[in-house]
Amino acid sequence: MSEHSAVVKLAMELMARPSITPEDAGCQQLMAERLAPLGFVIESMFFEDTLNLWARKGSGKPLFCFAGHTDVVPPGPEQQWHTPPFEPTLIDGTLYGRGAADMKGSLAAMIVATERFLSRNPQLTGDIAFLITSDEEGPFINGTKRVIETLEARQEKIRWCVVGEPSSSRQVGDVIKNGRRGSLSGTLLVKGVQGHVAYPQLADNPVHKAAAALAELAAQEWDHGNAFFPATSFQISNIHAGSGTTNVIPGELQVLFNFRFSTEVTADQLQQQVYAILDKHALNYQLDWILNGEPFLTQSGTLLESAVHAVQQVQGFAPRLETSGGTSDGRFIAPTGAEVIELGPCNATIHKVNECVLAADLDRLAEMYEQILELSLT
Amino acid sequence: MSEHSAVVKLAMELMARPSITPEDAGCQQLMAERLAPLGFVIESMFFEDTLNLWARKGSGKPLFCFAGHTDVVPPGPEQQWHTPPFEPTLIDGTLYGRGAADMKGSLAAMIVATERFLSRNPQLTGDIAFLITSDEEGPFINGTKRVIETLEARQEKIRWCVVGEPSSSRQVGDVIKNGRRGSLSGTLLVKGVQGHVAYPQLADNPVHKAAAALAELAAQEWDHGNAFFPATSFQISNIHAGSGTTNVIPGELQVLFNFRFSTEVTADQLQQQVYAILDKHALNYQLDWILNGEPFLTQSGTLLESAVHAVQQVQGFAPRLETSGGTSDGRFIAPTGAEVIELGPCNATIHKVNECVLAADLDRLAEMYEQILELSLT
Repeated sequence: MSEHSAVVKLAMELMARPSITPEDAGCQQLMAERLAPLGFVIESMFFEDTLNLWARKGSGKPLFCFAGHTDVVPPGPEQQWHTPPFEPTLIDGTLYGRGAADMKGSLAAMIVATERFLSRNPQLTGDIAFLITSDEEGPFINGTKRVIETLEARQEKIRWCVVGEPSSSRQVGDVIKNGRRGSLSGTLLVKGVQGHVAYPQLADNPVHKAAAALAELAAQEWDHGNAFFPATSFQISNIHAGSGTTNVIPGELQVLFNFRFSTEVTADQLQQQVYAILDKHALNYQLDWILNGEPFLTQSGTLLESAVHAVQQVQGFAPRLETSGGTSDGRFIAPTGAEVIELGPCNATIHKVNECVLAADLDRLAEMYEQILELSLT
Repeated sequence: MSEHSAVVKLAMELMARPSITPEDAGCQQLMAERLAPLGFVIESMFFEDTLNLWARKGSGKPLFCFAGHTDVVPPGPEQQWHTPPFEPTLIDGTLYGRGAADMKGSLAAMIVATERFLSRNPQLTGDIAFLITSDEEGPFINGTKRVIETLEARQEKIRWCVVGEPSSSRQVGDVIKNGRRGSLSGTLLVKGVQGHVAYPQLADNPVHKAAAALAELAAQEWDHGNAFFPATSFQISNIHAGSGTTNVIPGELQVLFNFRFSTEVTADQLQQQVYAILDKHALNYQLDWILNGEPFLTQSGTLLESAVHAVQQVQGFAPRLETSGGTSDGRFIAPTGAEVIELGPCNATIHKVNECVLAADLDRLAEMYEQILELSLT
């Protein structure tokens, strides 16, 4: 074990715990045991099936927060793994196992960076916190969202937040996510009248009525994006009508769709445009919405500048700022007024079999995190 | 039992046999036992799971054929039946039980009509045959279709054919079906590229690509019908894409559709028009067709005239000629060059619980069938 760095060693300890969503499997306990000796007040927030950790050192301002999750996605087909998914294995400098990149490696780097920073800065002005959930990969109902609600209720405000999501593409630090698109989902039920295909005059085919409306939704330009966001995108993920019987005109059509939207439109504007198109086609429908997250953007500020500098210092190149990709728990933290960025390992293998990360990248990530703390808090 | 007419008595004997498709449950044996003494040569044609009866008297021309089926659809929820579905029960002149109208009543009427006709015409010029299957309500693979193939192979030609399907609407004989629309089914698979909704540029949504093509297919006028057929109708019966996951752009879209088409277009023309529309929208697709039946029409001739006269004589009104409704086994018989009509009981209760027929209607139907034999063969 002596050959492993402190970061890799902790990452492996976390990865050995099979914390498939919403299980935490002792990861937060392990993190708490490292943070408590540093003066962090440990608060476990258990909501329904989800364990969350809120660990804070100090009660002053500004509050710097590391955010992340201990849960991992299921390993998938185990026979396709070259090493057991929950037995972290280092081979030729690459660390294999579920959670290596998403995101137990980041959690280890955060802890070690904090330890080192505090040992060099025993008289800290600002505060540091960890907001860790075990429900990021799942329904995200009882995770970061509820921790933030709890903090808001007691007026506890995060000023700067680094989310450890695997933001990097080819080299660790080459991409910092300084925002995310919004996500708005719709469940559309188009109603018709069921009947026999031989008697179409007695039926009203909801697929026929909806087809032109769906074509128009698919062709619509919602905005043109901006300097930070690509254009808003509409995608139908599911469409279903009919029970398999070939001589029955179905009575209902169900369509699930999703918007990934930029800061150029609001969820409300998108909803109004969808209603207008459906109504124009005189559909009889029911439409339910879920706003999964508003878009957020950290365009500038101390945190972003610190992170860009940190990457530059550790890697010798400047990171690209991007807002692409899926949603992250940053969407729950940013609306409180916090500056939020995401910086973590390369994401090429996340959610796949043989998930892995370069051990050296985790050490570099810890250096970056330490630099960010340094540049932000001192 | 003495109060029941010969037709009702035989109908009840057939209905007591629970011949759910493809079971015959002894019905054809019962019919054969009535036909053999009249000089019919009995031929059982057993194809796979399906028993068929070909009974023929004589080997001359022209050949008159009664066609029908002994199988019935399942009874459905038995607790909703007022009388047990396979215990035929006569209440106030109405005969209840599965198969009363579709079509054991017709089979009984055919047998009794033939017995009476032959007893009055012992020196018959033309021939009479019965083509009876136990797979009309099912997949219709091993029923009438294969019997006809067998007859064709040995050059045995039907000139006139009366199918006993329940054609009537309010009074027995008010509707004669003198044709049926064609039925052409398509299974369309539109191929795209699966991906994550957050990365639409890496995917190709088959639902989006297909929507405009489906809208055009749904809006298309295929023909205007003619004096005997309504306009050709296109109906999508099933549409499916996506596995329920809301953040995945589906890789494939499956669409099942069906044409009910008139004699103004051919199946080939419809297929070419569908290909043209799909190609115009540049879809990557696979399309499999099933021609369930060509349309057929018996516009005039001895058989149709005989049937119209027979209804007029028995009921005092002229029947309407219609080609509406689903397919029937007539589609397999008509293409051999036979004149085909369908005449049977009222169809209000077929395939439902408490299926029933007026006992008097079965007697009238037997009179009509006897008249048709008389008018056609003497």
